[in-house]
Amino acid sequence: MITSAANPRIKQILQWQRKARERERDDIFLAEGPKMYEEAPPDWIREVYLARSLEEKLLLGELAPALSEKLRQSGYEAVEDGLFRRISDTQTPQGILTVLRRPHYTLEELLQGREPLLVLLENLQDPGNLGTILRTGEGAGITGVIMNNQTVDIYNPKTIRATMGSIYRVPFLAVDDLAETARGLRARGIHTYAAHLKGNACYDTFSFREGTAFLIGNEGNGLTEAALDGAESCLRIPMEGRVESLNAAVAAALLLYEANRQRRNGA
Amino acid sequence: MITSAANPRIKQILQWQRKARERERDDIFLAEGPKMYEEAPPDWIREVYLARSLEEKLLLGELAPALSEKLRQSGYEAVEDGLFRRISDTQTPQGILTVLRRPHYTLEELLQGREPLLVLLENLQDPGNLGTILRTGEGAGITGVIMNNQTVDIYNPKTIRATMGSIYRVPFLAVDDLAETARGLRARGIHTYAAHLKGNACYDTFSFREGTAFLIGNEGNGLTEAALDGAESCLRIPMEGRVESLNAAVAAALLLYEANRQRRNGA
Repeated sequence: MITSAANPRIKQILQWQRKARERERDDIFLAEGPKMYEEAPPDWIREVYLARSLEEKLLLGELAPALSEKLRQSGYEAVEDGLFRRISDTQTPQGILTVLRRPHYTLEELLQGREPLLVLLENLQDPGNLGTILRTGEGAGITGVIMNNQTVDIYNPKTIRATMGSIYRVPFLAVDDLAETARGLRARGIHTYAAHLKGNACYDTFSFREGTAFLIGNEGNGLTEAALDGAESCLRIPMEGRVESLNAAVAAALLLYEANRQRRNGA
Repeated sequence: MITSAANPRIKQILQWQRKARERERDDIFLAEGPKMYEEAPPDWIREVYLARSLEEKLLLGELAPALSEKLRQSGYEAVEDGLFRRISDTQTPQGILTVLRRPHYTLEELLQGREPLLVLLENLQDPGNLGTILRTGEGAGITGVIMNNQTVDIYNPKTIRATMGSIYRVPFLAVDDLAETARGLRARGIHTYAAHLKGNACYDTFSFREGTAFLIGNEGNGLTEAALDGAESCLRIPMEGRVESLNAAVAAALLLYEANRQRRNGA
């Protein structure tokens, strides 16, 4: 059992928690809690840390059988409870921290299926929003998420947590030039729609049954002119009252579930 | 200009920022930033605090005319910049903090219009989710939000911020017993729908053109049995992949905008 803050692995985890650059250099990310551990693809798992109190439950047979079995297969390192709280990013640690290798997807993997459904995110800054978009996207049957490089780090611990496991299942890609990517998708026959207040057509007047990509902009400023230019059409989510814009994750959810509704109902 | 942390008004603001009970006792709430100040109903404003650097801009005529005019009408107290940062709840203070009296709505005010559209929230814990629901709700044309008393404080500074001003325009009410409220709404001819995984009817198979209320449960546990019993029907948002639930604000958005879509399109 690790009991010292001077332990090199503990020091390394603290670096990974704090610094995006360290995580990137080592091509890893961190995920906390039993749910995130249980849903992790086995071949992504590199290290597992278990709080001593959770290890005790494991040894007493008090954990769920599937979790116990997975812990036996992956192996783990026990960490003294007080020290575990320090390496955890959450206020109420759930006793298990997983270090995982990063997936590396190709554009082809994001275009699987007959009619791809994508979101393209430009300069999103809220880690919770990004994670929620992956979670909601999986629910709506998305085939991939493309972000520009100014979007918040998808491996930010808050983003990982907000995905609720979808980080393991939704393919994603970071690109330098989102407008160029949008034009590339159009050339492949995928319809690209910019969600923007300037759009004069309501989002539910389009058919999203063919390959579809939605461009969503920054929380405060919306899409840049360059990104708008890259899109085939502009669409608008109607708003009553004095609301000037919707939360980015809410806007993405409404568009993706409208596509889902149309595809489900054949409408 | 206030320059001392020992100033009684500064001490009072710090109490209000930190303690829900203090805010409740004095029947006030706090809102930060120029947008939240500008949109505030004039008769709700009790005190206005301006960072010295923003006051300088005001005196130099560098602020937007509408903002300058409103500041002259409401009056304000200038606060030294370093001290202002301490009374602010945000990491990057925007130089203006407003103390507002609380609104007190009656159920009748939430049932305005021919066909009310309501959300009923049970045990919601995330302040950002609650604020986002008010913001999205206003956009979708909601007539009111009803929360049970175990729901997070609507006057939490994070909630207020996430409403983006909708706190001023969406009527809301806290009740002891949400199931009883739901039954009361049914007795008035309002259809009540519980969003729940147990629902076997997809949300877009219902008509929401008549008076409608959606019940949304806690982020982790969903609705209680008691709340489910209070609802007329149970509905489900379909989810693909391995997604077990959606974020509460996303679920509310999908339901409210489906009602909005139907009412707009006469479908």
